[in-house]
Amino acid sequence: METMLKGTGHQVTIAPESPVVVIGEKINPTGQKRLAQALRDRDMGYVLALADRQVSAGADVLDVNVCLPGSDDTVLLSELITILGSHATVPLCIDTPNVRALAGALPLVRGKPLVNSVTGEENSLKSVLSIVRDRGAAVIGLTMDERGVPGDAETRLAIAEKILERAAKIGIPAEDVVIDPLVMTVGADPRAALVTLRAVSLIRTSLGVNINLGASNVSFGLPDRQTINQAFLSLAIGEGANCVITDPAKLTLTIRAVDLLLGRDEYASRYIARFRDPHGAATS
Amino acid sequence: METMLKGTGHQVTIAPESPVVVIGEKINPTGQKRLAQALRDRDMGYVLALADRQVSAGADVLDVNVCLPGSDDTVLLSELITILGSHATVPLCIDTPNVRALAGALPLVRGKPLVNSVTGEENSLKSVLSIVRDRGAAVIGLTMDERGVPGDAETRLAIAEKILERAAKIGIPAEDVVIDPLVMTVGADPRAALVTLRAVSLIRTSLGVNINLGASNVSFGLPDRQTINQAFLSLAIGEGANCVITDPAKLTLTIRAVDLLLGRDEYASRYIARFRDPHGAATS
Repeated sequence: METMLKGTGHQVTIAPESPVVVIGEKINPTGQKRLAQALRDRDMGYVLALADRQVSAGADVLDVNVCLPGSDDTVLLSELITILGSHATVPLCIDTPNVRALAGALPLVRGKPLVNSVTGEENSLKSVLSIVRDRGAAVIGLTMDERGVPGDAETRLAIAEKILERAAKIGIPAEDVVIDPLVMTVGADPRAALVTLRAVSLIRTSLGVNINLGASNVSFGLPDRQTINQAFLSLAIGEGANCVITDPAKLTLTIRAVDLLLGRDEYASRYIARFRDPHGAATS
Repeated sequence: METMLKGTGHQVTIAPESPVVVIGEKINPTGQKRLAQALRDRDMGYVLALADRQVSAGADVLDVNVCLPGSDDTVLLSELITILGSHATVPLCIDTPNVRALAGALPLVRGKPLVNSVTGEENSLKSVLSIVRDRGAAVIGLTMDERGVPGDAETRLAIAEKILERAAKIGIPAEDVVIDPLVMTVGADPRAALVTLRAVSLIRTSLGVNINLGASNVSFGLPDRQTINQAFLSLAIGEGANCVITDPAKLTLTIRAVDLLLGRDEYASRYIARFRDPHGAATS
C-alpha cells in the first residue's frame, strides 16, 4: 500500500520495503523558546531557515505545528503555510489539534499534504476526516480514543480498524491513512515500548497500512536519550514502521543504516551520502 | 531454553526474555598489534588488564583467542586459560580453530565454558563435539558447512538442525548449543543482514535454541560503523538473538537500551547503571 504525498517540487511515497520516510518535527514551538518568540514576532525568516536545515539533514516531509500556549493558531498557521509553500519544495504535514485552524490552513497547502492527526475519538473522527477528504489529503491516525491510549496492542489495532472504517465510509482510501500506534515513556512503564512494537507488527500484518511513529517520547526522563531512540527506531522499523516523525539532524543516519541493513539501499549510496554530508552543508 | 555457563565466581544464563549476554571479544590478537606482542612476550599482565576492562565495560563472558599468525596456539592457550582462571571470575569462551589446542585447554577451564565453535562441516562435527561433550561444556554452532555460508536463511536453519542432531546423538543437549547464524558484510552484499535477520527469526522460532551473533562484521568497509552496528544489533535482538560477541566498551549501552525497550530491565536499572559508569571505572 502506497501513501503518496506531494510538495511543490517533491513527491514522497511511504510504502513497505521502500526507504523510511522522515518527517522533520522541529517546526513546533513546544520546548523551543527561540522558535516560539520568532512565531510571535512573525520572524518567518527564522522558521524558513529551520525548514531548510531539516531538509538538508534528511527530512522528506516537514511537520508544521505553530500552537503557542494560550493563543489561537488559526491565523498564524495559514500565514506560515502560505509562506512555506512558496519556499520549501517538500510535502507538508499540518499539525494542529485546532479543527478551525486545520480547516483554514489545509486549502492553502499546495500539493498533497499529510494531516497530523485524527484519533479514534468520536469528536475527532467527525470533524477531521471530512476536512481531510475534502482536501484530498492523507492523514495520520493515532490509536487512542475517549479512554486514552490502550495498554495493549490488540486494542490499538481495534482503534486503527475503526479509523480506517470511518475514513473509508466517507471516501478516504486506506492508503491515505497512516497509522501511528503511539509510543509512551519506557521510564514510566517498562512495557511501553514492547506494546508499541507489538502494535506496529500487528497493525502492519493485519491491515497492511503504512505506519508512522514518533521517535523520542520513548526515552523521556532517561539519560543518553539518543542511544535509546536509535535502538527504538531500529526495532520499530524492523517490525514494519516506515515513516518516522523526528529531529532529522539526530536520527537520519540511524534510519539510513536500518534501510541499508534491510536491503533498501543497494549500494549503500543513501547511507554514505548522509554520512558524508550529515547536515546537508553542501546543499543548504 | 536456558544455556547455563559458569565462571569461578559468576554464573551466566542465556535465555529468551532474559537480558542479552555480552561476550567480550577483545582477547583476540587479530588486528591488535599490542596484544599480539604481549602474547608473544608472555606479558600476561596486559592480557589480564584487558580482561578486567571488558568485564568493567559490561562483558558477562570473555572470549579467549590467542591465534597468532604462523604459530601454534596450543601451549599459549593452555597457559592463558590457567592464569585467567585464577584471575577473572566470569565464564570463558574458548575460541580456536585448532582442535588440539581446544582439547588441551578445555580440561583446564574452571566452571562451565563455552566453546567457539563447531560448524556443520563433517570434520568439525567429528572433532569438536566429542571434546565439548567430554568436558560438559556448551558450544557455539556456526551455520556454515563445506560449501561455505549459505546465501539463504532456510539453508542456515538446515545446518543448525544438523549441528543440533549430531550434538544430541552424542549426548549434548540442545540447551548447550548456541546457534550463530553468521552475518556477512552488507557493503559487499546488500542482502547480507536481511538474510541473517531472517535466519535468526527462523532458527529461534523453529528450534527454540539461543542465538549468538557477532556485531561488527556487518559494517566492514563502511563509514561510521558504530551507527550500523548499533542498528544491526537492535534489529537482531528484536528478532531473537540473545547473546552477542562484541567489544563491550562500544556496544553494551545499546544492548542495555534494547533490553530496556523489550521490557527486560524493569526499573531501567541496568541501563542507568551502565550509563553512569560506561567503562566500569568505579569497579575496575
